[in-house]
Amino acid sequence: MKDHSPASDAQPSADVATRAGDDSRAPASSSADRYVLRKIQAKLRDAPVRVTLWDGSTCYEGATPVATICIADRRSLWRVVRHQDVGLGDGFRDGGITLEGDLVGAVEAVFRVNRAHWTAARAARRQRPWWRSNTRGRAAANVGHHYDLGNDFYRLWLDRRMVYTCAYYATPEMTLDDAQVAKLDLVCRKLRLRPGERVVEAGSGWGALALHMARHYGVSVRSFNLSREQVAYARRWAREESLDDRVEFVQDDYRNVSGRYDAFVSVGMLEHVGPPHYEALGKVIDRCLPPDAGRGLLHFIGRDRPALLNAWIRKRVFPGAYPPTVSEVAEAVLEPWDLSILDVENLRLHYDRTCGDWLARFEAAEAQVIAMTGPDLYRTWRLYLAGSQAAFRTGWMQLFQIVFRRGGDNDLAWTRDALYQGGAAAEPA
Amino acid sequence: MKDHSPASDAQPSADVATRAGDDSRAPASSSADRYVLRKIQAKLRDAPVRVTLWDGSTCYEGATPVATICIADRRSLWRVVRHQDVGLGDGFRDGGITLEGDLVGAVEAVFRVNRAHWTAARAARRQRPWWRSNTRGRAAANVGHHYDLGNDFYRLWLDRRMVYTCAYYATPEMTLDDAQVAKLDLVCRKLRLRPGERVVEAGSGWGALALHMARHYGVSVRSFNLSREQVAYARRWAREESLDDRVEFVQDDYRNVSGRYDAFVSVGMLEHVGPPHYEALGKVIDRCLPPDAGRGLLHFIGRDRPALLNAWIRKRVFPGAYPPTVSEVAEAVLEPWDLSILDVENLRLHYDRTCGDWLARFEAAEAQVIAMTGPDLYRTWRLYLAGSQAAFRTGWMQLFQIVFRRGGDNDLAWTRDALYQGGAAAEPA
Repeated sequence: MKDHSPASDAQPSADVATRAGDDSRAPASSSADRYVLRKIQAKLRDAPVRVTLWDGSTCYEGATPVATICIADRRSLWRVVRHQDVGLGDGFRDGGITLEGDLVGAVEAVFRVNRAHWTAARAARRQRPWWRSNTRGRAAANVGHHYDLGNDFYRLWLDRRMVYTCAYYATPEMTLDDAQVAKLDLVCRKLRLRPGERVVEAGSGWGALALHMARHYGVSVRSFNLSREQVAYARRWAREESLDDRVEFVQDDYRNVSGRYDAFVSVGMLEHVGPPHYEALGKVIDRCLPPDAGRGLLHFIGRDRPALLNAWIRKRVFPGAYPPTVSEVAEAVLEPWDLSILDVENLRLHYDRTCGDWLARFEAAEAQVIAMTGPDLYRTWRLYLAGSQAAFRTGWMQLFQIVFRRGGDNDLAWTRDALYQGGAAAEPA
Repeated sequence: MKDHSPASDAQPSADVATRAGDDSRAPASSSADRYVLRKIQAKLRDAPVRVTLWDGSTCYEGATPVATICIADRRSLWRVVRHQDVGLGDGFRDGGITLEGDLVGAVEAVFRVNRAHWTAARAARRQRPWWRSNTRGRAAANVGHHYDLGNDFYRLWLDRRMVYTCAYYATPEMTLDDAQVAKLDLVCRKLRLRPGERVVEAGSGWGALALHMARHYGVSVRSFNLSREQVAYARRWAREESLDDRVEFVQDDYRNVSGRYDAFVSVGMLEHVGPPHYEALGKVIDRCLPPDAGRGLLHFIGRDRPALLNAWIRKRVFPGAYPPTVSEVAEAVLEPWDLSILDVENLRLHYDRTCGDWLARFEAAEAQVIAMTGPDLYRTWRLYLAGSQAAFRTGWMQLFQIVFRRGGDNDLAWTRDALYQGGAAAEPA
């Protein structure tokens, strides 16, 4: 591609072309700035993404780029050099770096370059690096960082049931609202819930799954959540639906779950647990279920190989989060406790679409988000949502649902046919 | 249960009751023999299985036993003490130990006792013990040990397509013949085969899957197998069905697979690979598939936690075999090669039923089997088939199907609905 670029043909001696910058605030770029620019562009390899400096300098040689990343000042440029992804993300956050063109497409292109590079390198296995430990005290702070932004904030761009996990688009034309109901119901069908059973949930969100289980499957639910804002919302909702006699929301750590249940379910919490705590989670599951029966479902963002979450996402969006591989979860959460894997499903393209739906709604609510939280948070979350969509689309991240059951328990579905007959429950008005 | 046993109430002072033995060959049991008998019975805990010696000595105190294990002479008794499972199995093999009553039920009861014990003990994780290494040379010998018993032997009790892996009883009333076809077709649907594609198979068996794929899905297949007898049979079958232009059977080690394919499939071979060779298997899969596409399926007997196969089964039936956990396979075969898990299904109750169907046919062919192979092999295989059925029924062993795809490849089924519409392909006459 480089060989056929008109730019490189026309200007063989100048690999950094400079045009007059529009911005009179900043001085012209120096040769050091342009050297760094070349390094950044080289790291992107063949990704169709152009980088420009404040005075218009660029060294992009490819075909029509899907996006142009504009670095507005020297401080933002050197922050990328010093802090890499964190510098880049913080540049987008404070407006020192902007993007013209297709944001999701640009992140996707960068991920594809990196994935190809990793594949070629056959990277070393299983680094077990440091991550922020989700001890009881810190877990609450980490959860608060993300989920206590305010129910009004999330209401602007989530579906009407406030489900902040991957949806299940049972048919391609489904709306986000319907796809979230389809997901709640798929989880219930996989758990084979029966009226009168007792279910414990680790991580309630705003309560949608707990209420769906109680309403449509006749079970009673005890649901644990650290986020004060979410628990208050969920309790109000349960009262409004007259389900508060069968659904109890508890503001507490999952490690404090007590009692015996027929089923354990956790949707979108395992990402916040962290590998050092997987055995403790397994112990909680073990203690919740009868010694010779019971089943459960874990729904979580995962990986194909062990790797840390992007450093900027950990800093600004999800402190303490880690998306595990299937083997990490199976080995540490399930194997030590005589829990048998029945079914694993990877729904990553459904999360691609979910993030796309969220992003469209988020961008449509730009003015309200900025009024509510300021421009930094709007830009941060826009990049996070776009980056997440690109991550699922390129296979950087996965969405796994693991169904398990106590080892010796033979009360199994004979086949998976029943999951796919009748489809999602009709939602009452 | 012990407290309410009439036997223990009636004979409080005699924990070993002796009745006149029918066998005049053997001397009466000694106090040492009866001490050992008590130890064996104690190890069985509450399992409803009675053990008797050649002179009728027993110390069983439970309710009506599902079976009585009869030890016919002192040599067989002490062989159990010295070699445990191997001594017990070899006793059954040479007739020194016989069983009256429900063979599968007896093994099942013993497995349940052991499982409960293991659960309580929370056994140490991941012993990485020694196992017979399946190097290229030894792999051939190990495979020959089992599979070169002769096609006529297997024809006596397998289905008419000679499929020697777990069947899929899509509906409960299916026969073994139909359930094997349903399994072949389920594998093809999971692989989403399309006409004209190229498939490589590691482990052909007698060729049923390769021919099913070619006949019903229009693909071409290259299938590797170490067993001379099986390859000869499969080649003849391919010629008879005029599929030999599209299905090639290669008598060679899976590590020598060459060429590029759209899909990799292996049904019932991973058990014979052994953990030290998983990375090599992953490397073979990686080299068979395009760098940015392709998919595969692994169907194998597995475990919920790492453990060696029973020592006697390894000695007499499956030298070199090891049933892995999902995490062992995911970590060593898939993760290093950018292969993404899409779907895992556990079919262990289908293997319970498959083994039951095999055992019934095997027992019905007793006279022919003994005429063909002698009584030792008949008794060995009867115990192996019964033990396998009990292992799947009690959850000692699992049957996993893992579907995977190259990480960045987005050519995925949107949902699993298509697997469950239309059902198994109709089998032509």
